[in-house]
Amino acid sequence: MGAAEETHEGPAAGAPARVRLRFAPSGVDVKVPGGVTVFDAASWNGIAIDSTCGGHGTCKKCRVRITEGEVPVSKLDSRAFTPDELRDGWRLACRIQTQGDLDVDVPPLVTRPKAATVGVGRQVILRPAIVKRHLQLEEATLSDQRTDVQRVMDAMDDLELTVPIGVLRTLGPALRAAQWDVTAVVADGELIGIEAGDTTARRYAIAFDLGTTTVVANLLDLDTGTPVAVRSMLNKQQPFGADVISRISATMMDPEALAKLQELAHETLAELADEVIEQGQVAREEVYEVVLAGNATMTQIALGIDPEPLGVAPFVMAAMGYEGLRATDLGVHVHPLAPATVFPSLGAYVGGDITAGILATGLDRDRRLRLFIDVGTNCEIAIGNQDRIVATAAPAGPAFEAASIRCGMRAAPGAIELVTIEPDGVELGVIDDAEPVGMCGSGLVDAVSELVRVGLLDASGKYLTDEEAAERLPGLADRLVTVDGERVFVLAWTGEPGDAAKSVFLSQRDVRELQFAKAAIATGWRLLLEELDIPESDIQQVLLAGSFGSYLSAKSAIRIGLVPKLPIPRIVSAGNVAGEGAKMAVLSIQERHAGRALVDEIEYLELSDRADFNDRFVDELAFPGGS
Amino acid sequence: MGAAEETHEGPAAGAPARVRLRFAPSGVDVKVPGGVTVFDAASWNGIAIDSTCGGHGTCKKCRVRITEGEVPVSKLDSRAFTPDELRDGWRLACRIQTQGDLDVDVPPLVTRPKAATVGVGRQVILRPAIVKRHLQLEEATLSDQRTDVQRVMDAMDDLELTVPIGVLRTLGPALRAAQWDVTAVVADGELIGIEAGDTTARRYAIAFDLGTTTVVANLLDLDTGTPVAVRSMLNKQQPFGADVISRISATMMDPEALAKLQELAHETLAELADEVIEQGQVAREEVYEVVLAGNATMTQIALGIDPEPLGVAPFVMAAMGYEGLRATDLGVHVHPLAPATVFPSLGAYVGGDITAGILATGLDRDRRLRLFIDVGTNCEIAIGNQDRIVATAAPAGPAFEAASIRCGMRAAPGAIELVTIEPDGVELGVIDDAEPVGMCGSGLVDAVSELVRVGLLDASGKYLTDEEAAERLPGLADRLVTVDGERVFVLAWTGEPGDAAKSVFLSQRDVRELQFAKAAIATGWRLLLEELDIPESDIQQVLLAGSFGSYLSAKSAIRIGLVPKLPIPRIVSAGNVAGEGAKMAVLSIQERHAGRALVDEIEYLELSDRADFNDRFVDELAFPGGS
Repeated sequence: MGAAEETHEGPAAGAPARVRLRFAPSGVDVKVPGGVTVFDAASWNGIAIDSTCGGHGTCKKCRVRITEGEVPVSKLDSRAFTPDELRDGWRLACRIQTQGDLDVDVPPLVTRPKAATVGVGRQVILRPAIVKRHLQLEEATLSDQRTDVQRVMDAMDDLELTVPIGVLRTLGPALRAAQWDVTAVVADGELIGIEAGDTTARRYAIAFDLGTTTVVANLLDLDTGTPVAVRSMLNKQQPFGADVISRISATMMDPEALAKLQELAHETLAELADEVIEQGQVAREEVYEVVLAGNATMTQIALGIDPEPLGVAPFVMAAMGYEGLRATDLGVHVHPLAPATVFPSLGAYVGGDITAGILATGLDRDRRLRLFIDVGTNCEIAIGNQDRIVATAAPAGPAFEAASIRCGMRAAPGAIELVTIEPDGVELGVIDDAEPVGMCGSGLVDAVSELVRVGLLDASGKYLTDEEAAERLPGLADRLVTVDGERVFVLAWTGEPGDAAKSVFLSQRDVRELQFAKAAIATGWRLLLEELDIPESDIQQVLLAGSFGSYLSAKSAIRIGLVPKLPIPRIVSAGNVAGEGAKMAVLSIQERHAGRALVDEIEYLELSDRADFNDRFVDELAFPGGS
Repeated sequence: MGAAEETHEGPAAGAPARVRLRFAPSGVDVKVPGGVTVFDAASWNGIAIDSTCGGHGTCKKCRVRITEGEVPVSKLDSRAFTPDELRDGWRLACRIQTQGDLDVDVPPLVTRPKAATVGVGRQVILRPAIVKRHLQLEEATLSDQRTDVQRVMDAMDDLELTVPIGVLRTLGPALRAAQWDVTAVVADGELIGIEAGDTTARRYAIAFDLGTTTVVANLLDLDTGTPVAVRSMLNKQQPFGADVISRISATMMDPEALAKLQELAHETLAELADEVIEQGQVAREEVYEVVLAGNATMTQIALGIDPEPLGVAPFVMAAMGYEGLRATDLGVHVHPLAPATVFPSLGAYVGGDITAGILATGLDRDRRLRLFIDVGTNCEIAIGNQDRIVATAAPAGPAFEAASIRCGMRAAPGAIELVTIEPDGVELGVIDDAEPVGMCGSGLVDAVSELVRVGLLDASGKYLTDEEAAERLPGLADRLVTVDGERVFVLAWTGEPGDAAKSVFLSQRDVRELQFAKAAIATGWRLLLEELDIPESDIQQVLLAGSFGSYLSAKSAIRIGLVPKLPIPRIVSAGNVAGEGAKMAVLSIQERHAGRALVDEIEYLELSDRADFNDRFVDELAFPGGS
């Protein structure tokens, strides 16, 4: 399907692997893959070059001057410039396929290209895969019997188009009913619709973040790059288990489960689509595309592909990426031929959500060495910069989801999410300022971190004895009690006074659970650092991603050793980066290609294959502590 | 979909338009498009070069020696030959992309490439779009976590494959159930199936000829190139009219008619598919492809595309060709992902049946100047050779289908198909030697031709008066009578003796009908000859195609002026060339590409646009006569 378009967009055969571009007057100096156009390279690096057509060679506004390096004169150049200008090095930036190093002089803007800020502070130049063209066609005559499709193609001869049979079925009547005054809707090289009159201002798409727990839909206006509506809901697959492993197990137990799970994923996506379409008050058939980021299991299930091989060693995916999909393949009913783009997965446990997240953070474009951690039952970790990225998955277990924690709960009203412990008492932050009923993942990390800091937990994760506690921390000792034969620390007395069993507490076993989780994660990033042969202190930023990571206190994360010991401002909450990556892929075809390329660029390290994993894991169980 | 494959198959960029190849020892000297491989060029020109892989670069058997001209050494060449051999000019024919003139020495065959004789005496080297590969894959391990699809692709890394979601859904379970010992089914660059074990010997496809009247299905064994079963039936659309115009009219009158007609076409094709599958005793899911040749109206209706613009000036098609179709789009249920290839149409009245027919006759590959006429209600005419072909459509009207002829009937038992008239009587050939009940098209042409020859009809097509007849042809004069006020010639007295109204006769108006038909056709080919600036006598062969053309007597066709006045052996009945072209496209991807290319190569001349058409038509009404 998209092959023709990709040829068009891709680098020319025989181009050098990398070329250096220096832009004046900005002074920006970058290396880009040979064959990329100067226009695209500039877009990627945040340099605004004039353009109204978005690099399609039709507006002739992207004038730049080459002051160093050779660039042949293209056909369009000779129409856009005088011979004197050509001699002076003027060229159209969108026609220059870089074949060697260049110095490029960029004139000040006349038209400001549309751009949107998405991801982690990323500026994306709007260039959606969905393109609309208003066409006023000549009516057919006996001396001009071109076919209907040819007439439409000829009016857009800068695009290489394929036309699916669904469009051919409606094309003739549509052209004639509209008296040959139509708007063509093109999706990444495919003509997906012909609309009467000029509808170019109305173009929408939906970006989905299909999480195991939560699913988010963003309706975007492709003309302005702005979000029109956003909605989220719990994944309707919840009855089949909270995490991917339980859902995979369900499909292994029951041959009907896969179909049912797929249906529930489709229902979730379809309902969200309906909601954002209603909230945004747009026409359903003017939503021309959907993009989805999800982990490998969610993606395979949504596409109806048996996830069993993801759940058992050697953890094999059906495919990294999927081409030629339509929104209907995901159960989403918008424009009937709307394509669907699904972010590719790097491995069974480093899925499309992570590819999208890495795209959103620009990990692969930044000079700084950064550590990306998506904290959850399965924890994905990547370290790298523009030169190299390595990634892995660490089996953190359910501690962060608080599922295996005695008083654990999801981050909902009544969940303790912040904990401060001083020798004379405990201070809690509860979601919605409600009465505490349990603690969520961030509360758990805070609680353990604070208990380590005040010394009620030692570095090995063991509670003090009653005697030690009474001696060293008399103000807290009455909270250290025994419930069901296990030592617990009471965070909140929620039952009868003194009835620890009905309080919100943290048990010795809960502490062990968190220790295992953090040890798995720390082992993961330490092994990646070793792979890169880089000391921990070289990490310039830690990005905590995912719904859990976003709420984690940086101080606590450092204190329990979940993240490297770095100055607190370097630990950054990155938010829902998967959803942001999906939005970027909707807004820019360049970003989409970059997202696809990530699976080839990122090196995947399989931890379960490493003989030294268990020893390293044990080394990481201790809490480093610190203020 | 097929874009990647086409890039692979197509000529290299920058290759010269045409290069000359001289093959020794055969002495064949041809010009081919630059960039075509020597292997393909040889196949096209009937020169057998050793090969078991069909030009995929895997068998290394297509060894040839270049004795004149430069050919770089390919990667495969250096593995296939010694340095001495390379210096001597030895190369693999399938890797030589022709960039200049070459002399090629072809060694005698060791393995005989499979070939089939189809079309009009054409030898086609078997190279179907459907390829099967038996794969014995390594099982996945923790140190080899390639995705299922990657593992399959890597085992066929000489092919560039796309994998549709339907295959991805079944791939994982299929590989594991078969313990990684599978056969991959590839259709023109798309992986359409994975089968357990080695099924490479079982590969089938169906070639359809979708006529307005008759539909034919040919089941072919792609491994041997042989037909396994053939069936035909009347097009179930018959109740909507005998010709394309009545069916188009039906869709204009009734908004439901298009859907109904499409359904009837699908039913016809599906029933025929069922019949050949049963007759051939093959498994339905081992039929991997269908190819269809039909006129533009039949094709558009079968695909559900409104045919109205084909029926009214300026006679515009929705599209020339259709890509990315599946058999299910034609209502045919064989392998669920079987692709469908539909022959492209040149114009509203020179359809895919004619493109297929021209392919089958090799009109575009022959040095001889040949005239191709598909005789019917709409008559398609093409003249040309390997250098240039021009084509047109002539509105012959229903005379040849015998629908507008008083005693006309379809070529069925009881139809007079041969007529000989001597001064003393009439001799008839009747289908199935039955009692005559009417005459079919070839009987009509014979009758008129014979009446002109004996002189009962004058050159203007008028019957002699009774007096003239009694004087000049007393032995026939009693057959020249008046029925319903119109002069008729009785061919067979089938009622009471002397009751002309109940006999099988030829009326004055019937003669006029035939005159109009033959004048339209003769005007067509004369205008084409003028376009080429070539005298009638230069035509070296006339190919009469279609079910009617095949039964026409050459002598009669010449005598009434339907075809140029040439020696009788030069008038050849070509048979069902549309069906043969469809078979060729099934058996050879080269032939299929050649068929697609025809629509760009053939020049179409629109007759209804010509101011001189009516004058020329009147000039052609007379019968030339002659022995």
